[in-house]
Parts: sequence; structure tokens; C-alpha cells
Amino acid sequence: MFRVNDNYQKLPGSYLFSTIAKKVSAYQEANPDRKLIRLGIGDVTQPIAPAIIEAMHKAVDEMSRAETFRGYAPDLGYDFLRNAIAENDYKARGCDISADEIFVSDGAKSDSGNIQEIFAADNRIAVCDPVYPVYVDSNVMAGRTGTYDPATETWSNVIYMPCTKENQFVPDFPKETPDMIYLCLPNNPTGTTITKAQLQEWVDYANRVGAVIIYDGAYEAYISEENVAHSIYECEGAKTCAIELKSFSKNAGFTGVRLGYTVVPKELKCGDVSLHAMWARRHGTKFNGAPYIVQRAGEAVYSEAGKAQLKDQVAYYMKNAATIKNGLKEAGYEVFGGVNAPYIWLKTPDRMTSWEFFDYLLETANVVGTPGSGFGPSGEGYFRLTAFGAYENTLEALERIRSL
Amino acid sequence: MFRVNDNYQKLPGSYLFSTIAKKVSAYQEANPDRKLIRLGIGDVTQPIAPAIIEAMHKAVDEMSRAETFRGYAPDLGYDFLRNAIAENDYKARGCDISADEIFVSDGAKSDSGNIQEIFAADNRIAVCDPVYPVYVDSNVMAGRTGTYDPATETWSNVIYMPCTKENQFVPDFPKETPDMIYLCLPNNPTGTTITKAQLQEWVDYANRVGAVIIYDGAYEAYISEENVAHSIYECEGAKTCAIELKSFSKNAGFTGVRLGYTVVPKELKCGDVSLHAMWARRHGTKFNGAPYIVQRAGEAVYSEAGKAQLKDQVAYYMKNAATIKNGLKEAGYEVFGGVNAPYIWLKTPDRMTSWEFFDYLLETANVVGTPGSGFGPSGEGYFRLTAFGAYENTLEALERIRSL
Repeated sequence: MFRVNDNYQKLPGSYLFSTIAKKVSAYQEANPDRKLIRLGIGDVTQPIAPAIIEAMHKAVDEMSRAETFRGYAPDLGYDFLRNAIAENDYKARGCDISADEIFVSDGAKSDSGNIQEIFAADNRIAVCDPVYPVYVDSNVMAGRTGTYDPATETWSNVIYMPCTKENQFVPDFPKETPDMIYLCLPNNPTGTTITKAQLQEWVDYANRVGAVIIYDGAYEAYISEENVAHSIYECEGAKTCAIELKSFSKNAGFTGVRLGYTVVPKELKCGDVSLHAMWARRHGTKFNGAPYIVQRAGEAVYSEAGKAQLKDQVAYYMKNAATIKNGLKEAGYEVFGGVNAPYIWLKTPDRMTSWEFFDYLLETANVVGTPGSGFGPSGEGYFRLTAFGAYENTLEALERIRSL
Repeated sequence: MFRVNDNYQKLPGSYLFSTIAKKVSAYQEANPDRKLIRLGIGDVTQPIAPAIIEAMHKAVDEMSRAETFRGYAPDLGYDFLRNAIAENDYKARGCDISADEIFVSDGAKSDSGNIQEIFAADNRIAVCDPVYPVYVDSNVMAGRTGTYDPATETWSNVIYMPCTKENQFVPDFPKETPDMIYLCLPNNPTGTTITKAQLQEWVDYANRVGAVIIYDGAYEAYISEENVAHSIYECEGAKTCAIELKSFSKNAGFTGVRLGYTVVPKELKCGDVSLHAMWARRHGTKFNGAPYIVQRAGEAVYSEAGKAQLKDQVAYYMKNAATIKNGLKEAGYEVFGGVNAPYIWLKTPDRMTSWEFFDYLLETANVVGTPGSGFGPSGEGYFRLTAFGAYENTLEALERIRSL
């Protein structure tokens, strides 16, 4: 008789955003006349930029003619895209990453879920708390996290690194030594980040204790401060300890287009074993490349026109972020983030729990946000609003919150 | 110090098609004047059908306007596509599969590599021999296959079910009881299949011994004989024992567009645990949906125009198959397949090994095929040619082989 992977049964409840979606649709059904404003899930709302649309039309046309039709893509991505990434995201920033260290994928969520596969089952992970739920959940599925304690909402074999206003959202080195360290910087959900000097300390720490850093740079395009690194490879020694995950979802609005990439430097090894070779094998065996049309869309992100259009798009969302942040501050809220990331992280008022504030905001202001506790125990008492809405909606949401 | 997943180190050599690609490019480099004809990897050559191109252009345009822009897709696929699949691939064939039992993905290779994740690590797998290498390789990576014996090219914990001309390529029930049975029908690489009555026996067997069948129907569109099932759910009892994987790569030429789906019936359970819920959780945690544009392309596959155009495309390739099959027969080769699948499986002449014949064909006829031994030990002494080339190239390849 076949048996299933029991680790799945250990997962508590459902995926955070599914729970929110259910609550919201139940409320909307009961109150069909209310106009909800959604600043919950980190989904973008601006359309795809013209330079990218043009590239996709062109690629679709190529697929319509035998002479230009493209079948299976190279497993690891087309050279035109890998070269554009290496040139713009790395060489231009002084990072010595070559095109063949870049693995193109269907998105950073897939990569951040799948990357743990190439590590041993008994490795110990460390995560910032609060953080994007996929890191922990994908390790639960792999049996790496021990047992769950519903009282504290923590796993016995996960090292949590609290990031709260008490430590300015900068994680401390953990007391116990981790094998794999997940860092999402700028951070989802807190919208905060650390300086390049602080990141260098993490790289030094990882090299010293023999840990690997899984560095999620999905929000890199929103960095506005000079002293913040755009890639972990700006830090010395990162190539022997870090894997970097990047997304096109937030800088180019590809949440529904699907494209991402992962950098695994050739110098990253465990003894003699090259992690680059392992990830190549994983990609070659369980993945068949991102769509040609989508890879051409990715290439257009790096064209002159694409760059200019996306700079405007990021500015549009960051104007929202500033609007929310300043507005909430004036209304007496304690707010964080929103400077190097499109997320505003606020302390719930009147000692409300995160879910209490979620219900309160949904029912009284008809605004949907994300409860901080959904991102980890140290998120309790916090709440996330995203800057990815339309400007008009963002303004209206803010008005509603301020008039509560 | 972090450690890696040691199972990867057990994998012998590289992925079959990477090895072929390297050999071919070395030959081409040494002989730049020779025109190679590639009937090796199962990649299509006909352009995407007009109805699908039109749907993609329309979807690209929708992404360019805020009113019609689409961000994150529903994790499990858009309803418009899941409904079209349920209606056309199942209800129209009398199979009681509902839209919410269909999980849309970025392709059947991903699904066939990932599906093993939801099963226990100590499950025992059975595979047809020869077969598509991903089934075994993905289980090697998960540690389910025991140790490798280079002499026999087999894994100690894998049950091999030989499919050779001696048993008309119909696998026998294995002596040892498997937990997971992979069936690819029509089969890649042999191009052969079994009757619906024979498939019913497999379903009954699986239900009797408590095994789950992973049924890969990637080549379903090529079935020409009446007594062959287009879906395993045409068999009674399949919903309690079978998962079906489907691809858009071969019926619609989506090898570079990337789309597939997996059916996990709600009735499929291990004790109280629903495999449907597990796969939904897997998709929700480690995948973020196929691109909107690609899902609209998939929908167009089921439009009246799309269906007519794809019927012609399949006929085009099957004309190639008949050409190869008849031509080789006349030239004295022993050939199989090519009736319900776009693959021709031939016995190598003069007791050559599969790789000897590969080199011989490459060097003397400049035709690239796939050595049968790459698909499993029982593939030794066989060779695969695909019908996915352009007709003119197929004719020329055949002329070259016949004149050897």
C-alpha cells in the first residue's frame, strides 16, 4: 500500500493568503454593496510596460512561423536573457557573476520553494521572524523543521531570528549555529532592510560557521538608500556562501507573466561538491525552461526603453508607499518600512492582535491588509499594507483609515 | 557546516539529452560542412497554430492595460482553462473528472518530476523499461531508489517492467508489489501502447495491491486506434488509484510555450489523507501558476479553430511517422511504434549497441536519433527516431538511412 509524505500533515492551517482570500470573499458576499480596497497580497496593479508588451508581441509572432519558431528552451535559460541579467544586475554593480551562474526560472516563489531540495534533510534552517512563509513551509514539507508547537506557533528545529522595532528589524546572529540562513532583504513583510556593512557581517558569519545564505532579493528595485546593497555579491566572500534569488514580479510587474532567476556561484561548494552542478541537474531533470515569450519579455526589462518605463513604475508605487507612511504617521500610527521596499509595516493600535486589526480594518474601513502574525510569531501585533495598489485607491484607503 | 542532498551524487552521468547534445555539437564542430538532421530529442518543429497565436496576442494586449491587466493567477489555474480541459478532455469522453480536480502547471516535465514529493520516502516505485528518464531520476534525487549497479544500469530499489518485442511491449505485473507505478502510454520511447482492456487490468491490479498509478498521457493526441484509452479515467476504478499527467507540448507544439496539467481525483486517498489536498498545498506553496498569456493559449487549443488546426498538425507528424516506419521496414529494419505515437522504435542492425548505432548514424548518415539504452536497460539494442521533424527533412533522413 502506498504511503504519503507525512510531513505535509504537520503543516498547520492553510497558506496565509488563501485564508485571507476566504475571509475577504465571505465578507464581500455578506456585504455586496461595500467597495473593498485590497492592500493585502503583494500583487501589482500597473499594466506591463510598453517596451515589454512590444517584445512579447514580437516573440508571439516568431512562434507563428516555422523559420523563427522556438521549441524547448535551453534548460537553464536563453543566453540573451542570462547575458542581459549578468550585465545589468551584476557587472554594472561591480559583482563578478557570469551568465552561466544564472539559472532562469518561472519565478522566485518556485525557486525559493525548490532550492532546499539540494540540501541534506538534517540541515538546520534559520529564518528572520517575521518572513515570507514559503521558506519555512517548503522545509516543513521536506521534514527539516521538527515538531510544531501551536502555542508559540514555532517549529522545534527552526532557528527564529526576531526582527522587531526593539532591534530596528536587524536580525542578530543566532545563538545556535544554522546550516541554511534565509535572508529576504529588503524584507517581506516588514519593508525594512539592513546596510551593506551589516550584510557584509552576515556574509562573514556564514563563511565562518559554514552556513549557506539563501538571499531573496525580490524587492531590490525599491532600494532608495545609498548604503544598501542591491545584491549580496556586492559583499566580499559572498560567492563561497550565498545563493541569490531574484524575481521580475515586483520590478516589472510580472506576477502574472512569471519569471525569476537564481544565482548559484561556481565557487559555492560543500567539500568537493559543486552546488552549481546540483542546481543545474535539478533544473535539467524537473524543469523545462521558462517560456520563450516570457524570456523575451525579461530581456526587454533591460532595454533602454524598458528601464526608463520601469523606473517610472517603481516611482509610482513608492509614491503610494510614502503616502501611506506619512498619512498613517500623521494619524498617530507607528509605522516602519516603505523607504527601500513597497511595504508598510505598522504596529496595531490599542494592543489589538494582528487578526483583530485585520477584521477591524476589513469591517470598518473595508480595507484589506495582511496580519503580521501570518509571517511568524514576532509579527504578532503588526500589520502589513502594500504600496502596489492604484494611487487613487491608496489615497481613498488612507482616508478611510484616518477617519476611523 | 551545511551538507547537501547526497542522493544527487548517486546519479550516474548526465541527463540523456545533454549527453546527446554534447556529442552532436562536437561532431558538428569537427565537420562544419555536414548538414545534420535531428530526429533525436522529441521537440516539435511546426509553428504554433493561428488560433493560438491570436489568443496570445489578445492576452498580451490585455496585460498592457490597467483595466484588463492580470497579476497573480489562481494557484491551481484559471477557471476558463480548467473548465475547457474538463469539458473536452474528460466529459466529452465520458470521464467524470471535474474542473477542480485539474491542476494547471508549467508543463508535464515539472509535474512528473515533482509529483513524487507527496509520497513517502520509502515507497517502492515500478517503471516500464525503457521509459522517459525523469521518473527514475526524480526518485533518485528523493532517495527512493537504493543503490546503483553500473554493470546492469539498474537501481536496487526500483522494480523494472521490461517492455520488449518479446512481450509486444506490454508490461507484466511485477513479481514484487510496488507502491507507485509509472505508466507512460502511449509510451515514450517505444511509441507502443496497450489496449483499454489491458489498461483496465492495471487499474484493477493497482486497486487490489494498494498502489498508485502515475499515468503520463503526454502522447494521447496521437492515438489512432479505437481500442486505446485516451485517459486512464476511461477505466472503471481509476479515480481511487490514478493520477494523470498531461502535456500541451506534443498535441499543440507547446515545448517552448510551457503548459501542462495534472489530474488528482478527490477520491484518491491514503487512509483519510486526500492526495488532492496535498497536491493543492504543494502547488500553493512552491508554484505560482502558469502565465496568464500561456493559459489563454491553452484555452485556444480547445476552440473550434484550434482543434481543427491541431488535428492537421498531428496528422502532419503522423505522416512523418508512417513514412519513417514504412521506409525502414522496406530497408529491412525491424520497427515498432508510430501508430499511436510520434515515435519509431527500431531494433539496431547487426547486433550493434544503441550507442554504437547512434555514432554510426551520426557519422555515416548525419542523422541524430536517441539510443534506446538511455531509456533503461531493456532499451539496449533499440533506437528511437521521432516524427517531429519537418516532412522534407524526414524524407531526406530516411533516404540517407536507406542508402547506407
